[in-house]
Amino acid sequence: MGSTLSPERADYLRSSFKTGFIDYCGFEAVDIGPGRFEARVEIKDHHRQQDGFVHAGVMATLADHTAGYAAYTLIPDDCRILTIEFKINFLRPAHGGSLVCRAKALKPGKMVIVLEADVFDVRDEGEVQVSKVIMTAAVVSAANLARAE
Amino acid sequence: MGSTLSPERADYLRSSFKTGFIDYCGFEAVDIGPGRFEARVEIKDHHRQQDGFVHAGVMATLADHTAGYAAYTLIPDDCRILTIEFKINFLRPAHGGSLVCRAKALKPGKMVIVLEADVFDVRDEGEVQVSKVIMTAAVVSAANLARAE
Amino acid sequence: MGSTLSPERADYLRSSFKTGFIDYCGFEAVDIGPGRFEARVEIKDHHRQQDGFVHAGVMATLADHTAGYAAYTLIPDDCRILTIEFKINFLRPAHGGSLVCRAKALKPGKMVIVLEADVFDVRDEGEVQVSKVIMTAAVVSAANLARAE
Amino acid sequence: MGSTLSPERADYLRSSFKTGFIDYCGFEAVDIGPGRFEARVEIKDHHRQQDGFVHAGVMATLADHTAGYAAYTLIPDDCRILTIEFKINFLRPAHGGSLVCRAKALKPGKMVIVLEADVFDVRDEGEVQVSKVIMTAAVVSAANLARAE
Repeated sequence: MGSTLSPERADYLRSSFKTGFIDYCGFEAVDIGPGRFEARVEIKDHHRQQDGFVHAGVMATLADHTAGYAAYTLIPDDCRILTIEFKINFLRPAHGGSLVCRAKALKPGKMVIVLEADVFDVRDEGEVQVSKVIMTAAVVSAANLARAE
Repeated sequence: MGSTLSPERADYLRSSFKTGFIDYCGFEAVDIGPGRFEARVEIKDHHRQQDGFVHAGVMATLADHTAGYAAYTLIPDDCRILTIEFKINFLRPAHGGSLVCRAKALKPGKMVIVLEADVFDVRDEGEVQVSKVIMTAAVVSAANLARAE
Repeated sequence: MGSTLSPERADYLRSSFKTGFIDYCGFEAVDIGPGRFEARVEIKDHHRQQDGFVHAGVMATLADHTAGYAAYTLIPDDCRILTIEFKINFLRPAHGGSLVCRAKALKPGKMVIVLEADVFDVRDEGEVQVSKVIMTAAVVSAANLARAE
Repeated sequence: MGSTLSPERADYLRSSFKTGFIDYCGFEAVDIGPGRFEARVEIKDHHRQQDGFVHAGVMATLADHTAGYAAYTLIPDDCRILTIEFKINFLRPAHGGSLVCRAKALKPGKMVIVLEADVFDVRDEGEVQVSKVIMTAAVVSAANLARAE
């Protein structure tokens, strides 16, 4: 993955991370490096489902977005990332005070990047993995994005 | 799938649908029947990602929850549904004014239910499918839920 | 999908279908059209697993290859299809005398095609669906294939 | 995982591994331990697809079966493993002389086991990962297997 990531680009991605739905969900960028990204969310009642666990959609969104930003660290400034697909396995219910997600590229590429994202429930006794995502992302030039149909 | 769904149970599921994260996201139950569920969301700016499209996490959450409630129509009142896993393919970006999700059971079962959920972007020219989910859900007795570790 | 498929191209794909591992597995092309492909296999003892059911790998291979050839019907002659990923759900064990797979494109594209493949167990009482695949395929120019790393 | 695996059970699983379709495909058990399994296949022409690469179905079958046997190391003798679903990402084409697959349990469970299987292409210059599988397996009592419908 020998790619570099300039401090300016890292700062830009860190702040770009938190827009729209991600800002609404309260997710925060934590750490960034070439081919990897870490994010977290403090769990509030509005992140839960009907039985009091963290909603599967919160974990899926956190993993999708964190993996997408890990992909952003590998592409030119004039390109964009679109998720082609992801699969998420839920290993156990999450009920802790916050979630941490760590994503990294498994296979960088000029047009397609495959990534892995692991979500951990931060409990009093430590971190426990609660879900695992494998995602495929497309690298699209910003100029072509409007025609992404 | 010849199961029945009492009007009382249907009403209960319809209102139970909108709790916690789903209420926060503004998703609405639309229609319910044995082995199927339909929901929708009016898209606001806080549902979008950095390029103005609906965030992948919104579609994933909508599909997961709608499929989960399609599963709820098939199980006894004293059981609960937990998502084991799902995979979502994004067919094209969503930029319309609302999304509709229709989910149905592909394979009911006493312990595992497999479901399909299709998400449509409601545009001026009509509905266009934007994502497809195949999900596996576990049927867990409410009494065992606390031990779902 | 409005694309056309010349009779010559259809004949070529039908015979190209059965090469290498697919020939070894005994899979047969059945029907072909723009964006769709149907194939079958007569089940022999060497298709089974340790409990006598058809092996999951037989169904996965049949679905992957049939969906790949559905994709081939949509691309120029000088391009090739490579599977990016697929997910398969097994709905029930297969124990019948043959399997049929029907694949179709959900979303054609110049660089990425998303497909659906359904596998049916042919039993005395009729066809029963035993697995469902959603696949993402890449369209690669034949000239670039050698550099597909 | 703290489970133990008796030498007798390990020997039984190692030989049971190679039956039916797996024997036909020429896959070999290599190593076994609690919650993990390793297998390999020497690539012949009948494992290839139309462009000379190893067929995606060979990798999917190898990963499915190796992960299934990793699951077998965690369950009682009177239970069986059935694959509920798996997803496979193909990271790059495989063209080496053999493949190695290493599978391990991510989340053991009494009724559901989630596993990870990585497939490596053994090339002159060393092993290169070519695919990654995340699988969900069901633990079924042998007595119930006949009723697995």
